[in-house]
Amino acid sequence: MDEIEPLRIMPGTGIEVLDQTALPFEERRVVLATVEEVCEAIRALRVRGAPLLGLTGACGMAIAAQERGTDDGTLELAANELISTRPTATDLGAVVLRALTTARSAAGSDARRDALWDFALDYARARQDEDRSMGELGAPLLPVGGAVLTHCNTGALATGGIGSALGVIRTAWQQGRLAHCYATETRPLLQGARLTMWELDRLRMPATLLPDTAAASLIASGRVGAVITGADRIAANGDTANKVGTYALAAVAARHDIPFFIAAPTSTFDPSCPDGATIPIEFRPEAEVGGFGEQRWSPAGAAAYNPAFDVTPAALITAIISEQAVLRPPYGASVSRLVSKR
Amino acid sequence: MDEIEPLRIMPGTGIEVLDQTALPFEERRVVLATVEEVCEAIRALRVRGAPLLGLTGACGMAIAAQERGTDDGTLELAANELISTRPTATDLGAVVLRALTTARSAAGSDARRDALWDFALDYARARQDEDRSMGELGAPLLPVGGAVLTHCNTGALATGGIGSALGVIRTAWQQGRLAHCYATETRPLLQGARLTMWELDRLRMPATLLPDTAAASLIASGRVGAVITGADRIAANGDTANKVGTYALAAVAARHDIPFFIAAPTSTFDPSCPDGATIPIEFRPEAEVGGFGEQRWSPAGAAAYNPAFDVTPAALITAIISEQAVLRPPYGASVSRLVSKR
Repeated sequence: MDEIEPLRIMPGTGIEVLDQTALPFEERRVVLATVEEVCEAIRALRVRGAPLLGLTGACGMAIAAQERGTDDGTLELAANELISTRPTATDLGAVVLRALTTARSAAGSDARRDALWDFALDYARARQDEDRSMGELGAPLLPVGGAVLTHCNTGALATGGIGSALGVIRTAWQQGRLAHCYATETRPLLQGARLTMWELDRLRMPATLLPDTAAASLIASGRVGAVITGADRIAANGDTANKVGTYALAAVAARHDIPFFIAAPTSTFDPSCPDGATIPIEFRPEAEVGGFGEQRWSPAGAAAYNPAFDVTPAALITAIISEQAVLRPPYGASVSRLVSKR
Repeated sequence: MDEIEPLRIMPGTGIEVLDQTALPFEERRVVLATVEEVCEAIRALRVRGAPLLGLTGACGMAIAAQERGTDDGTLELAANELISTRPTATDLGAVVLRALTTARSAAGSDARRDALWDFALDYARARQDEDRSMGELGAPLLPVGGAVLTHCNTGALATGGIGSALGVIRTAWQQGRLAHCYATETRPLLQGARLTMWELDRLRMPATLLPDTAAASLIASGRVGAVITGADRIAANGDTANKVGTYALAAVAARHDIPFFIAAPTSTFDPSCPDGATIPIEFRPEAEVGGFGEQRWSPAGAAAYNPAFDVTPAALITAIISEQAVLRPPYGASVSRLVSKR
């Protein structure tokens, strides 16, 4: 099995990223050695996934120090450029600001450069450790000898580690526990069809793709023993925002008494949101619906409803797997205990 | 408003069909004057939708008499050719066999030809009358001043009349009752994005397209007052097989106390199936998943789960609108009354 490496850090030089827009048909690696190149790669979705964007931002700050210098004004300008590439990506913004703080606490240009590269390397290691922990904690929850259903892409390509939900799936499979993974296409951006199927193919894990419309049929057929997805934001009461389409999977799983799991690191919990109704939901361009890439299927100018996320009520979630613990209902108490430790 | 005419009968000559593979971008009309041309149009999905395929089959038999002659052997051969184009389309097979019986009961070549054209014209009128009745009976169930969500294509393009579920929607809108229609893309064949959005555009009805993944978010948001779809087969207990993706819509609608309606003519009821578990489900080619047309998104050779239909349990269906009556639970009794009249 070849390890999937979406981002390689070359301290003192730059980073090499796997261009995710070329997947699954071409494994094109691109070297990024300037802030502008990093920003372009983020905007063009060559790198994506909240945790991987955080890492890319950390690397972008080290590249800024290397390329442009290390005085406060220069680094602040670079931080702004990096953050403004995708304003809704909270990990990216938070990590870039932490990198800036780290640089400021170092004295002298060489020390600042070294501190920023060290920060990026540490951040990468932390992501990998967290993913491994989620995998180990979550794998025992998956059905022995059975199959699971997942949605969107939550693997190495999204985190730079082994992934969140897909990391749990992969761990359970490598332990000889889990036999098969079903993946939804995940319209409109097709991360399941393009990226998850590519990762599962690289891992040599037996996998089957399905249209999003077929997920309820699959669950009703008894072919899967659990559904597991990642999360974009988890409220204090356990309500979970994740890639649009997740809520229906949880609703149908509950009707068939099949467990529905969320896998997400502690950083995804947002105790400032009391419940799902207070989580802001990003709406994306209408042109993503009724077509893909250059191809169109719907009449020109058709209006579209295109939320990026939906909210799964806590009552439908069997357990939430974080890197520290497996949370069970009532989530008000278990989420509160978890976030108090961070 | 321009009337949508997917099939025009030209007695003594042939038929002119709207090539549905060219929609929504081109309104290409094709004249079919031989059995081989009719078969090609069915196989290539230029005409589709169970009721419209029935009508196409009836016309195909009249064309056979015109083109090839009217003796029993010639007509039986043509019937076989027509039926074998899409072996799972029950309407097509049933109507072609009824046309054959009609021809046999006429004496002489001219009488047989005339009987077959008359059969096709009568069948077309009956479809239009049934659709109008469903529209009138169903429209009062839809929310006043509100919006509905529908799935797949159930309009004029599918039936040759005003449609089943989309006929009810259109009637309610033309009565000034309903304000807006939301339509799912309907992966993998995208009938919602390609055909329903085109029909709604032609009708000038306000409409919005959404990815199948966004339907649960839409329902949870309170934007729709009802969900309404067609049906492919309805069992004796009311369990309903329809285009894959329907079941999840019904499950989520039930969670939000939004009515879920089925609109289907009496011919769709199959009392020989006691419940949904006994309805045979067609699986379609794996290549339909992970791509569309010439475009591919998933790794080559990815396995796919691709059922054409799913089964919505009767318990999730608020009412079934047929051309004769609006059926309410318990469906065992109401379905039995309905089919006893046919």
